[in-house]
Amino acid sequence: MTQRQDTILQAAARCIARQGVRGLRVHDVAAEAGVSTSLLYYHFTDRDGLLAATLDHINDVAAGHRLDGASGETALDRLEALLLGEIRDDDDIHTGSIAWNELRATAVFETGLRGPLAHTTATWNSRVRAALDETGTGTGGDSDQLAAVLTAMIEGLSGRWLGGEISTDQARTLIRTAVHRIITPTGKST
Amino acid sequence: MTQRQDTILQAAARCIARQGVRGLRVHDVAAEAGVSTSLLYYHFTDRDGLLAATLDHINDVAAGHRLDGASGETALDRLEALLLGEIRDDDDIHTGSIAWNELRATAVFETGLRGPLAHTTATWNSRVRAALDETGTGTGGDSDQLAAVLTAMIEGLSGRWLGGEISTDQARTLIRTAVHRIITPTGKST
Repeated sequence: MTQRQDTILQAAARCIARQGVRGLRVHDVAAEAGVSTSLLYYHFTDRDGLLAATLDHINDVAAGHRLDGASGETALDRLEALLLGEIRDDDDIHTGSIAWNELRATAVFETGLRGPLAHTTATWNSRVRAALDETGTGTGGDSDQLAAVLTAMIEGLSGRWLGGEISTDQARTLIRTAVHRIITPTGKST
Repeated sequence: MTQRQDTILQAAARCIARQGVRGLRVHDVAAEAGVSTSLLYYHFTDRDGLLAATLDHINDVAAGHRLDGASGETALDRLEALLLGEIRDDDDIHTGSIAWNELRATAVFETGLRGPLAHTTATWNSRVRAALDETGTGTGGDSDQLAAVLTAMIEGLSGRWLGGEISTDQARTLIRTAVHRIITPTGKST
């Protein structure tokens, strides 16, 4: 990924976060990024290609931020930090989250988005699954399922957070509650 | 709620499921319901009032369907049935779920939707919390949090289900996995 491509994808996320996906034109993103529309087509082929690359970009930016907290002491701390990285008071994360949420909602109506979204979600799930496996408690062969449950919960909580229904602190408390219930035995040792 | 109001709200859910919320006009819903626009304004005041009533209607329809499975043997069965009622191959549930998902996504951009959405979500959360309390395992004073986690997870899974990323069966398996991890001690008795 070149610096120029990075700039374009950041601009795409900002455009989507501001006005949604429906009605978004490639021209709007080019204008936001300060580049020509033809350069944008050169790099991303068409609107679907641009949106697919934007999804990956959002996921990678969030993954970079998550690594900030990934030095926790225990594997459980690191899993928690990975998930908490999705909902925090940070402009990049907030913009990326709105754009992701909007792309997810739009995929119900625009089938062209579904493939890229499934691909990027699978990448996200496998990152969470790897962190889950390190805790050693995702036994019983259900790590994939638990990872999918956790990322789905993050998406559900993000929707409420972005719509102002719960605060950043409330969302993060709910993530911690869920991780501790799902990963450690309930109502016993904690 | 009169039969006529019910007909209008069903029509509103169908319109939203078909074309989304953005750009939806009161006139479209009146046409779909086969009533005059003025009757619709008479019952629901304005577009925001119509959308708020539609949210409640979707929640109530889903609650009615959930009751079908609410005769399970144990409290855990009943909680599971309540949550599974949200994702199933049923036209009313599918239409309601698309409309709810779309209204949730739109509330990020249209602040007028936020109050009604928070109100209806609170009703849903308290229904789940009541079922949770009956299982006797939502101890530690965190029933409200666990209910919010479970309904957020349902919203996250619904988004993937509606966009064709996971099948009905896969979504339902994930719900069961989550309920059993969250409600019963993990990796022990099951």
